[in-house]
Amino acid sequence: MKDVASAAGVALKTVSRVVNGEPGVNPATAERVRAAIDELGYSRNESARVLRQGRTSTIGLVIEDISDPFYAGLGRAVEQVAISHGCLLLSGSSGEDPGRERELVRTFCARRVDGLIVVPAGDDHSYLRSELDAGTPAVFVDRPPGPGIDVDTVLCDNAGGARLAVAHLRSAGHRRIAFLGDNPAIFTAIERLAGYRGALGELFDRDLVSMRAPDPAGTGADLDRMLAMPDPPTALFTGNSRVTVTALRALRGRRLALTGFDDFELADLLTPGVTVVAQDPAGLGRVASELLFRRLAGDRGPAQHLQLPVRLITRGSGEIPPHSGEISPHSGEISPHSGEMPPHSG
Amino acid sequence: MKDVASAAGVALKTVSRVVNGEPGVNPATAERVRAAIDELGYSRNESARVLRQGRTSTIGLVIEDISDPFYAGLGRAVEQVAISHGCLLLSGSSGEDPGRERELVRTFCARRVDGLIVVPAGDDHSYLRSELDAGTPAVFVDRPPGPGIDVDTVLCDNAGGARLAVAHLRSAGHRRIAFLGDNPAIFTAIERLAGYRGALGELFDRDLVSMRAPDPAGTGADLDRMLAMPDPPTALFTGNSRVTVTALRALRGRRLALTGFDDFELADLLTPGVTVVAQDPAGLGRVASELLFRRLAGDRGPAQHLQLPVRLITRGSGEIPPHSGEISPHSGEISPHSGEMPPHSG
Repeated sequence: MKDVASAAGVALKTVSRVVNGEPGVNPATAERVRAAIDELGYSRNESARVLRQGRTSTIGLVIEDISDPFYAGLGRAVEQVAISHGCLLLSGSSGEDPGRERELVRTFCARRVDGLIVVPAGDDHSYLRSELDAGTPAVFVDRPPGPGIDVDTVLCDNAGGARLAVAHLRSAGHRRIAFLGDNPAIFTAIERLAGYRGALGELFDRDLVSMRAPDPAGTGADLDRMLAMPDPPTALFTGNSRVTVTALRALRGRRLALTGFDDFELADLLTPGVTVVAQDPAGLGRVASELLFRRLAGDRGPAQHLQLPVRLITRGSGEIPPHSGEISPHSGEISPHSGEMPPHSG
Repeated sequence: MKDVASAAGVALKTVSRVVNGEPGVNPATAERVRAAIDELGYSRNESARVLRQGRTSTIGLVIEDISDPFYAGLGRAVEQVAISHGCLLLSGSSGEDPGRERELVRTFCARRVDGLIVVPAGDDHSYLRSELDAGTPAVFVDRPPGPGIDVDTVLCDNAGGARLAVAHLRSAGHRRIAFLGDNPAIFTAIERLAGYRGALGELFDRDLVSMRAPDPAGTGADLDRMLAMPDPPTALFTGNSRVTVTALRALRGRRLALTGFDDFELADLLTPGVTVVAQDPAGLGRVASELLFRRLAGDRGPAQHLQLPVRLITRGSGEIPPHSGEISPHSGEISPHSGEMPPHSG
């Protein structure tokens, strides 16, 4: 680094700033430093530095699936906060497998990450105890840690959002509101079921609840079963954007009101537009990583448990009134000419 | 590790397999090893291991933006191949900034990644020369490296896909086909423009080309300008999924044929369904990372330049015939009652 500094005619600290991506270096100066680095073929040996200083400037992120837009948005926000602190991101997808989550966390810790951000797949995090005791901070996001682990946690208001969605459908006159949830092993799925149940009160009917990982065949079969009931649902509350999209495919041509949990990119372009209770995946990632960097800066206060608000976005599908689909009471079938849904305004 | 092996009653090699996530360990045995690790609070010190062995089992991935579904799909495929080789992924988004791309690559190299997978933002990669010479393999994907750098490269058939899209619109009778591309600094945008131009021949009209990063206001203004021409376009070819979605929002209610480059999740649920030339982002990620691991396994053969095929998926929007929107020849405006588009079958 001394050679680079002298070749570029700058202070050692300036070279260090450029190499570590820290702010406060004039762009032209930074360019000169980079040119000197290229010329000299210099590359900082991180492994030696870690042994000397004990910090790797690396954050480990475990999410459910980076190819899911919700988690991709969360991950991008974490990445941006990490970059602003001169840190890199090691990331991996658990695919809802608690064993895989554990292996990722273990491997990240073996790589001496400075801290962890975890969307947990499982609910036993006792394996984290020794790392936490050794001083590696962890922040849980989207879902809380299992019993006995009290760390910073950032969730959205799952039950409140579900109550909001159901109250919105009730206010349009619906009394038969089905819930298509997700795998009941998932924390958010259970929280949203609780909110749905609470908002329905005595209208709750367990036959209108489907708790399964969304797949076209299974979700379609559950919908067919519900719509064949003597008193079929007139509205759907779908538990996350993957369920919403699966339900929209399974519904195609059948006119039911629908409000979904989670916004998604083309919700406004569908016909009708899809009414949703939106959470803020980028906000979850940003708040979680800011908490982590506060810990890395030395904050030793009690664990924070934050809940981010959700909001209702009305676009048409959630405002369809009951029985607008001309349901035949005897067969539970929808008449064929009701297949085309006209647009509705929110 | 000896303590773990003796506590779990297994061979040292078995502990190493579990710690490194290698296959071939009985699940019950792996669980016993993990329990012994938890009990002993053991954590492999990677930094010491790297200095000893020279490999970090880490791959660096530079992409454009992890929150873009196309790159999220590519990234997930890279992650899966890396995991199957017991490797972790360091990843970062360049945001189309060549300086940021370079900083990410430099930082990854400083962390001693075993290899690099790069979706380049810039077209000067001379900064990579010293790392390549030092034996760190790199694979470029989606876009090629700049002049003088000959490394494994995996692209899709950009020009061929554009020709396919334009030929499809021409076969429906269109002669006035506009191209909404992207920032002309992007390799794929220029390749697709070339394919578009080639497929149009003497029908090419530069006034029907818009090359800009998609944004609702700018894209909308370009569309308005084209539709106000005496001989307005009757069909659009959009250069990637972000442009397609922006154009669909800008078009709302105007009935033009449209074929897009890149598939996207809800293309089949829109009305009409959106006809696309689909590339395979997961395939790009998978093939690129398999090439990288072949290099890491010792392959010293000449650089491979692979091109993955694309395919046309017809869903309705690309099969709309010319002048079905009742365009008034004098004003170039669309009459208001043509605002609702009926569904079309592919």
